[in-house]
Amino acid sequence: MRLDLNGDLGESYGSWQMGGDEALLDLLSSANLACGFHAGDPATMRRTVGWAAARGVAIGAHPSLPDLQGFGRREMAVTPEEVYEFVLYQIGALAAFVRGAGARMAHVKPHGALYNQAARDPGLAEAVAQAVKAFDPSLILVGLAASELVRAGEEAGLRVAREVFADRAYTPEGRLVPRGRPGAVLQDEEAALAQVRDLVRDGRVRAQDGSWIPMTAETLCLHGDHPRALAFARRIRDLLGSEGIEVLAPGAP
Amino acid sequence: MRLDLNGDLGESYGSWQMGGDEALLDLLSSANLACGFHAGDPATMRRTVGWAAARGVAIGAHPSLPDLQGFGRREMAVTPEEVYEFVLYQIGALAAFVRGAGARMAHVKPHGALYNQAARDPGLAEAVAQAVKAFDPSLILVGLAASELVRAGEEAGLRVAREVFADRAYTPEGRLVPRGRPGAVLQDEEAALAQVRDLVRDGRVRAQDGSWIPMTAETLCLHGDHPRALAFARRIRDLLGSEGIEVLAPGAP
Amino acid sequence: MRLDLNGDLGESYGSWQMGGDEALLDLLSSANLACGFHAGDPATMRRTVGWAAARGVAIGAHPSLPDLQGFGRREMAVTPEEVYEFVLYQIGALAAFVRGAGARMAHVKPHGALYNQAARDPGLAEAVAQAVKAFDPSLILVGLAASELVRAGEEAGLRVAREVFADRAYTPEGRLVPRGRPGAVLQDEEAALAQVRDLVRDGRVRAQDGSWIPMTAETLCLHGDHPRALAFARRIRDLLGSEGIEVLAPGAP
Amino acid sequence: MRLDLNGDLGESYGSWQMGGDEALLDLLSSANLACGFHAGDPATMRRTVGWAAARGVAIGAHPSLPDLQGFGRREMAVTPEEVYEFVLYQIGALAAFVRGAGARMAHVKPHGALYNQAARDPGLAEAVAQAVKAFDPSLILVGLAASELVRAGEEAGLRVAREVFADRAYTPEGRLVPRGRPGAVLQDEEAALAQVRDLVRDGRVRAQDGSWIPMTAETLCLHGDHPRALAFARRIRDLLGSEGIEVLAPGAP
Repeated sequence: MRLDLNGDLGESYGSWQMGGDEALLDLLSSANLACGFHAGDPATMRRTVGWAAARGVAIGAHPSLPDLQGFGRREMAVTPEEVYEFVLYQIGALAAFVRGAGARMAHVKPHGALYNQAARDPGLAEAVAQAVKAFDPSLILVGLAASELVRAGEEAGLRVAREVFADRAYTPEGRLVPRGRPGAVLQDEEAALAQVRDLVRDGRVRAQDGSWIPMTAETLCLHGDHPRALAFARRIRDLLGSEGIEVLAPGAP
Repeated sequence: MRLDLNGDLGESYGSWQMGGDEALLDLLSSANLACGFHAGDPATMRRTVGWAAARGVAIGAHPSLPDLQGFGRREMAVTPEEVYEFVLYQIGALAAFVRGAGARMAHVKPHGALYNQAARDPGLAEAVAQAVKAFDPSLILVGLAASELVRAGEEAGLRVAREVFADRAYTPEGRLVPRGRPGAVLQDEEAALAQVRDLVRDGRVRAQDGSWIPMTAETLCLHGDHPRALAFARRIRDLLGSEGIEVLAPGAP
Repeated sequence: MRLDLNGDLGESYGSWQMGGDEALLDLLSSANLACGFHAGDPATMRRTVGWAAARGVAIGAHPSLPDLQGFGRREMAVTPEEVYEFVLYQIGALAAFVRGAGARMAHVKPHGALYNQAARDPGLAEAVAQAVKAFDPSLILVGLAASELVRAGEEAGLRVAREVFADRAYTPEGRLVPRGRPGAVLQDEEAALAQVRDLVRDGRVRAQDGSWIPMTAETLCLHGDHPRALAFARRIRDLLGSEGIEVLAPGAP
Repeated sequence: MRLDLNGDLGESYGSWQMGGDEALLDLLSSANLACGFHAGDPATMRRTVGWAAARGVAIGAHPSLPDLQGFGRREMAVTPEEVYEFVLYQIGALAAFVRGAGARMAHVKPHGALYNQAARDPGLAEAVAQAVKAFDPSLILVGLAASELVRAGEEAGLRVAREVFADRAYTPEGRLVPRGRPGAVLQDEEAALAQVRDLVRDGRVRAQDGSWIPMTAETLCLHGDHPRALAFARRIRDLLGSEGIEVLAPGAP
């Protein structure tokens, strides 16, 4: 039994710092690095790639819609062609730093609004999958479990990693309750830990309405941008340890 | 005897068009493609890479300082670290589209202010050369003939291509007369053709003050953003033909 | 009988030119000037304000969603608060150039996706109206005839100008057929002229399905970004002249 | 005897926070607010204007070169025309939020590289002064004491406020030691307090080489972006109080 712990890193920009990236890296098996469209100027990208490479954490691209001001969280009316081009551009940019660090890129996980739009919209999902495949068909595509994105990755012949969230509430259909809705983010650490326990023990999570939904996942997302992030990440690792689950990147042998 | 004819292409951005790229490509052996920092949104990059690949024109990255509003023509006080990161980011982004088109990247030529700053400043020149080398040591670095950039490329062990201009005036020191100074751009086509003839026949060009300066070059830059661009490019090709000089990319066998 | 002829101008950006602004100005009574979010760098804004002021054409702000790459044409999931702030920022920026030219601002017309979203969504429409009112309650708000934006402007106590298009097809509900749908733009000049004639003679336009819809408007939009733009604008002016309709800005005495 | 305490605020951007703006405001008499070119998205501008207006702190624009990634700290080769346009654009944008808050703008202080370039270069200094004057000749122009900017403001007929820094070292010529040079920022609080004491008691500061330079100033800049910022600002206020100096904005009666 194994599970990947992934985190979104490298989300500083120029003089603005975000996240305690270096400390969080010690607790992750995979890092998704911003590529300049929602965060991550070139200096941040280089520095964060270096940190991840030094720790042997699996490095992935975290491409976004072009929206620095909105941190890539505003949905936009984009075409599959645009999405293909945005993703390909950003994977390439990050890959250059990965190559410069003598490392290799392991995966791609879309960010924010692009993640959500590609989870729902088959055309955009296929565009993401095709961009990943065009760049390197051995890359793992990370997407929301049971989403269009995961389906599109599989259809494109990519290896996929299905993602779940410890601290996000689910709808009865297995989707994330959108940010901004009441209860979308589980503020209670015990509830978030329980969600992970249900997942790894029973292969299910409890939806916001109390119903159970089956859920299989290869990777769990940890957020790094709040004060308790590190402490919570340690509790997750402890929980996984006590359940006999190894923390490993999806592509790790 | 051979000479490369290179042009700066892919400099549209979103709804704004610039240059008659597709027509000019038929007359070039190398194309330098904008990578998003001064021009070249992802859709333009993809489209222009496709055109160049279809014609077998050698594809290179044309990285810039981050200055969309100023078209990368404003010099900026940047550090070697920043330049390394800017160049690496942009090479990577373009390389992704090149890979997506099933082609290969042949060279890198800095754009505008970055080209000029790296021609003069050894630290910035070395930063450009190291970024190219970190990405792929087989790439050819294109820089102003007799500049710091060419010297840094050679020191880094890169293959370099020395560039001259048909329609730019030279100082007695062999530098370009800066844009904005009187006579910086040769408006007279006959004078520009004569400059090319002096170069290929005698290995020299006449400086703005009338003195002769020795000049050896592997590549000649053709500009595409004025009405006579295509007609002038054809005259250059005719001239080279009548001088028995073959038009070939530097990396062509 | 009077009608305003308005055009979207100042949509160049840095080195990229768009539209034959100066020539089109001679045919307009109102100009909507880009404010930097979809087009219009500060130099373009200053220059275009100067041209409009010199001709006595009424000057308005043409604020957009922040989307330079998409030319403000991609709809985005924005909140009313964001829209209020985007619009207020851009009105202020343009107003500074208007003041610097010794002129006065007459109106505000949202651009592209913001125009369309505010035409449909009462919350966003109110946000636009409140931003205009907060800046200067004597400004005229220009919006699609029969839209939420016009309604919100009236509710806020603003003077409004209802806009129609010569070359855009209408749905039976009186909305614009979205760009990208077949027939959205009337390519046939005679059809566009007929649409204007129906409007000014009979107060109605024919929808795409052939049905008639009543339509009252104070302003007609002329596009400047195609080769026939000037010639078509002259034909419109001739038509209005022969119908005895004076071309005047909404705020003109 | 009076002195203004000014601080650079509103330098967050989208999801990135910078500075403890609200707390620092209680200790300032003037606030310089970022206008979007180096920091300060529209939401941040609106919020910070609201805070300053609520406390009666004098509000000024803090325009920058267009360089979000470099936080406006990279010098750029810009023309006086560009500087005029950048400054006018940004003053206007901020002024709209000030008007929306029912307040008034009191001053303009250029930011970062623009501040430094305009301190040295008479042409750029004049461009800043003319932009301020074109917008509102009653605005106070804040610039480095004994700089070209202050001189240009006076020549343009503007009221000026000469600025000194508590925590920046001076050259024997009365200029700021550039950031990045050793000792450019006084890390020792006692030394910074002594610098202020010398200024207000004796009208002089000690240069980095130990020599004394005469210095007259109407405003003192306090930085808000380090952990001790608030505590240090309180010590400055205490010092001024014990010296019998009132903390007042330059334009306050």
